[in-house]
Amino acid sequence: MNRLLTNRKEVAKLAGVSEATVSRVLNGIGPMKESTRVRVLEAAKRLNYELNAVASSFARGRSGNLGVVLPHVPKVHLFSTYYFSELLSGIGEAVRSRGYGLLLLFRDPSSVYDYASLYRTQRVDACIVLGANAAESESEGIDRLAAEKLPFCVMDQRFDNPLVSIVAADHVQGSYDAVKHLIGKGCRNIGFLNGSPQYSNSWDRMTGYRQALEEAGIRVDDSIVYEGNYSRTSGINVAEAVYRDLGKLDAIFVGNDRMAIGLMQGLREKGCRLPEDLKVVAYDDSDSASLTEPPLTTVKVPFYEMGKLAAERLLTLLADKDNAEPVINEILQTELKVRKSSGI
Amino acid sequence: MNRLLTNRKEVAKLAGVSEATVSRVLNGIGPMKESTRVRVLEAAKRLNYELNAVASSFARGRSGNLGVVLPHVPKVHLFSTYYFSELLSGIGEAVRSRGYGLLLLFRDPSSVYDYASLYRTQRVDACIVLGANAAESESEGIDRLAAEKLPFCVMDQRFDNPLVSIVAADHVQGSYDAVKHLIGKGCRNIGFLNGSPQYSNSWDRMTGYRQALEEAGIRVDDSIVYEGNYSRTSGINVAEAVYRDLGKLDAIFVGNDRMAIGLMQGLREKGCRLPEDLKVVAYDDSDSASLTEPPLTTVKVPFYEMGKLAAERLLTLLADKDNAEPVINEILQTELKVRKSSGI
Repeated sequence: MNRLLTNRKEVAKLAGVSEATVSRVLNGIGPMKESTRVRVLEAAKRLNYELNAVASSFARGRSGNLGVVLPHVPKVHLFSTYYFSELLSGIGEAVRSRGYGLLLLFRDPSSVYDYASLYRTQRVDACIVLGANAAESESEGIDRLAAEKLPFCVMDQRFDNPLVSIVAADHVQGSYDAVKHLIGKGCRNIGFLNGSPQYSNSWDRMTGYRQALEEAGIRVDDSIVYEGNYSRTSGINVAEAVYRDLGKLDAIFVGNDRMAIGLMQGLREKGCRLPEDLKVVAYDDSDSASLTEPPLTTVKVPFYEMGKLAAERLLTLLADKDNAEPVINEILQTELKVRKSSGI
Repeated sequence: MNRLLTNRKEVAKLAGVSEATVSRVLNGIGPMKESTRVRVLEAAKRLNYELNAVASSFARGRSGNLGVVLPHVPKVHLFSTYYFSELLSGIGEAVRSRGYGLLLLFRDPSSVYDYASLYRTQRVDACIVLGANAAESESEGIDRLAAEKLPFCVMDQRFDNPLVSIVAADHVQGSYDAVKHLIGKGCRNIGFLNGSPQYSNSWDRMTGYRQALEEAGIRVDDSIVYEGNYSRTSGINVAEAVYRDLGKLDAIFVGNDRMAIGLMQGLREKGCRLPEDLKVVAYDDSDSASLTEPPLTTVKVPFYEMGKLAAERLLTLLADKDNAEPVINEILQTELKVRKSSGI
């Protein structure tokens, strides 16, 4: 430990910069003037200073791993859902480019997960919590983590605690855009198939749905608001009720692509023509969205970028604790992709 | 360490079974008579013996992590490909049910990866190699790993070295079934769009394709064998050549669903009617296979089960080195799923 600290001082002295600058250059944390960067790298090379951030992490008693804690959902192939696979691809890219490992751990959402022990036992240096929900057991685990001031970030789920770091997408705006698009197509009777209420992004979609309707002077009709759980099966199951209500529906906004694909499948089996009998706007813009018949108009969520950003911010924090903001709070924008399911 | 060994001996004595049996029961390695299982668990409880396999792993200086080493492929969202996401879901399930963590690490396929250091630095107890290919750098890394007799398993890629553990699918049989199905539909002129030649599963598909043709007395025509790289874009790109050859083609067998989806997209843009102008059989049975128009006839590969099996076998090996077979060699069967792309 001492040897490493002394060396960083020596590099700083030889390059004529501060120790913090040396650490920023060697860990690739920009922005940085190119001439400064070259000077630091040359000084480091001359002094045989360890350039590999992870190698020096180990020397400082770190694991070199970023933890990703996932909920265990029986029977669901979690990595095969667009949401998790894209987030992980983004996290993976950030982790790889800095020479870190990505440690996946599974939690039981019904009990309070002991995050702190992951740090204590040096299994992770920081962690990202995926798929968290509003259950008390979940928020208690997160609150404890925040109270210990350990580096972590929750993905796409809001908590009241201002010490909880988060990277999310703006689902209020995304849902507002989706419904406004349907209103622009002349629809007045717009149903909503929302996902599970334990996720804050479900409440956000509801807020955006209501805002767009109210702004257009359309009364919100709770009898055409349906609930699924973001699975394709739940979309198929709700087709019965939507079919029964077809007389009072021009269109439906669906909380994710999987449910929309299930719903369309169920409706088609009952003889529905889409989009003639019902216009559909979905959410996510997963790979399947452009393969369905008709292709889905849907709200693109930048999951890959969200995962990458969360991981980068945490690794930056680890590399340079003194200069990085400890609490992360980033909301990324969504984008409406118009295809044929919302009418031609 | 000593304390743990003594305890296992005591539990064995109290339960009236061997130490190996205690270890098998506590690590959940079946089959096991229920009465024996109950006796061991009761003895363990009475002696306050640590039931958590991972906790005792740590005590023995283990990491509690199974490593999964993936190739870095620039610009590809690896976890969003059906192949990797299903394998990881299976591995994840096995790892979770035994309380292990899953450490994802990225390798550069063009240089020899130093697997052994992962074990030396106690980052992993065992590892699974995904996406390996026939490049010399890759086989040299794997050979070194095998030479050190460290617990590992390569997924779906064959190597000549008999010390290399492998879990794979029978792609010769899968491809044979696909082509035989087309022959049964009356096709004689069956093209083949294969994936990258650096994967042994590509050679296996070629073998199965040739076997089915030869058995039916059909000459293999190299002018209707095309090459892609398993990406959707490569399927789109090959559409030009396939369209030109339509006069001499009844059908085409495609090495995976992604390429088939790209090929069908490219052909449709040129005015092709599918399956009327060309019958298509694909490979994988990914989520998208039933969403395309027409839905894909395709060979289902049990990726989830392959991942789960490899991880279970490795964790069994770790839990009970003396009784488990050190070299894993499992070939799982595929299954043809008939849909409309191969004709009605």
